Amino acid sequence: MAPFTTRRRVEFRDTDAAGIAHFSAFFVWMESVEHELLRAAGVPVIDRGPDGLDISWPRVGATCDYTAAVRFGDELDVAVTVTVGRTSATYAFAFSEAGRPVAAGRIVAVRCLMHPGRKPEPVPIPADVVARLTPYRPQA
Amino acid sequence: MAPFTTRRRVEFRDTDAAGIAHFSAFFVWMESVEHELLRAAGVPVIDRGPDGLDISWPRVGATCDYTAAVRFGDELDVAVTVTVGRTSATYAFAFSEAGRPVAAGRIVAVRCLMHPGRKPEPVPIPADVVARLTPYRPQA
Amino acid sequence: MAPFTTRRRVEFRDTDAAGIAHFSAFFVWMESVEHELLRAAGVPVIDRGPDGLDISWPRVGATCDYTAAVRFGDELDVAVTVTVGRTSATYAFAFSEAGRPVAAGRIVAVRCLMHPGRKPEPVPIPADVVARLTPYRPQA
Amino acid sequence: MAPFTTRRRVEFRDTDAAGIAHFSAFFVWMESVEHELLRAAGVPVIDRGPDGLDISWPRVGATCDYTAAVRFGDELDVAVTVTVGRTSATYAFAFSEAGRPVAAGRIVAVRCLMHPGRKPEPVPIPADVVARLTPYRPQA
Repeated sequence: MAPFTTRRRVEFRDTDAAGIAHFSAFFVWMESVEHELLRAAGVPVIDRGPDGLDISWPRVGATCDYTAAVRFGDELDVAVTVTVGRTSATYAFAFSEAGRPVAAGRIVAVRCLMHPGRKPEPVPIPADVVARLTPYRPQA
Repeated sequence: MAPFTTRRRVEFRDTDAAGIAHFSAFFVWMESVEHELLRAAGVPVIDRGPDGLDISWPRVGATCDYTAAVRFGDELDVAVTVTVGRTSATYAFAFSEAGRPVAAGRIVAVRCLMHPGRKPEPVPIPADVVARLTPYRPQA
Repeated sequence: MAPFTTRRRVEFRDTDAAGIAHFSAFFVWMESVEHELLRAAGVPVIDRGPDGLDISWPRVGATCDYTAAVRFGDELDVAVTVTVGRTSATYAFAFSEAGRPVAAGRIVAVRCLMHPGRKPEPVPIPADVVARLTPYRPQA
Repeated sequence: MAPFTTRRRVEFRDTDAAGIAHFSAFFVWMESVEHELLRAAGVPVIDRGPDGLDISWPRVGATCDYTAAVRFGDELDVAVTVTVGRTSATYAFAFSEAGRPVAAGRIVAVRCLMHPGRKPEPVPIPADVVARLTPYRPQA
């Protein structure tokens, strides 16, 4: 059933003085779509770990390539797949507007135990989370 | 010696498709200038209270009036005064560009003990914080 | 039929290190809801004036009062009314989360002819725009 | 004399509910530093082309890898080099905090003639712009 699909509107705050959506807006949309996918899959974005510590998904990498500009009011179709590793999840996003591709991006997130004031500690992704994300893996 | 003065540059991300700085950018500048004033005054923005709880300054109100548009690359002069009450601090900001006033805003912040998962609890502003902010109070 | 109602999700980017939605996020939501109302009412957010100039709605004032904090993932109900003057539109917003009020804000926008490189020129709001916004005026 | 170096403060709006700087903030800092470099080099960020059209630098790609979290109030050292092609400029950024590397990113921008309502048209980077950027090219 991959990919997960949704839409995002280009709001006025997303634009810049060049009259188009700012390139950084795509990273904010990507994260918002990632979280929408997690909610749809029944995976908590922020989980509770041992000792009451938060378990979250810090990013280790993010990238986006832009092929066309989008403007205020445009509605973007977003399709996303997720590839699950031992501790990481890689989300691949395709943005299109009225059928034409406009951008493609990727976020790599690592499941981590969040120790206050210390470096996040990567932890294995539990089997039930893997199972819930499997429907959204890229198709061969 | 009031007011405290500093400058902010209109960055490209601050602009919108109307070609000018977005009205919401002024609120972000106000907070950034408030924090610069606190650092200059030697007041921690986030303090440590009893039981290891954070003491912070949640906002109860924010307002801005706009008299002229500013554009990418403009340098804004910002002057700010602070009026201290029992638990609240009211910052008044005047923005100008090349000598002409462009906006005037205000933030009302309340010193609060931050209980996790509960409503922030207002606490009196300590005498030494009052003393450190006094130089920046509005002049008659 | 006033007010116009819609919802906004608190996205992760809307939060800050205090663990709550940043106060500036409410201004971005207000504008986004204003534009959703205009689209619903059939009023172009950016119109075309004489000589091909844009007609837009620069803001002359914005204000927000905060009564409760909201957190990542919360869904906010937003109700908005609009009061139309000769050249200005005043939007009043009420934000609530799960039935409790969390914030109330206001934006005053002026319909203006956008001359490149010159001050925006206020112009009367046309009768058909007034008529389209009338359903959303505050009820006595 | 490469690279160009400057600093950026982690402002409160740059943080998120995980208590650290949001990953998207690095893209906004990168662009702001790119523009500071251009100003230092005497290259206009937005230039005037034939027929009064704007010449600007739309982004075709942006990427960032994160190695450590940074927090509210941290001061980031940023070092940037630029590699100039026929129509493109590639900026490589290294972020560090108190001497430890925290992130490395890249922006690829293409010099373009901005036709209103049409796709931006790539144009060769003029010799004088190349000359002004040469001091900041990566050293072997």
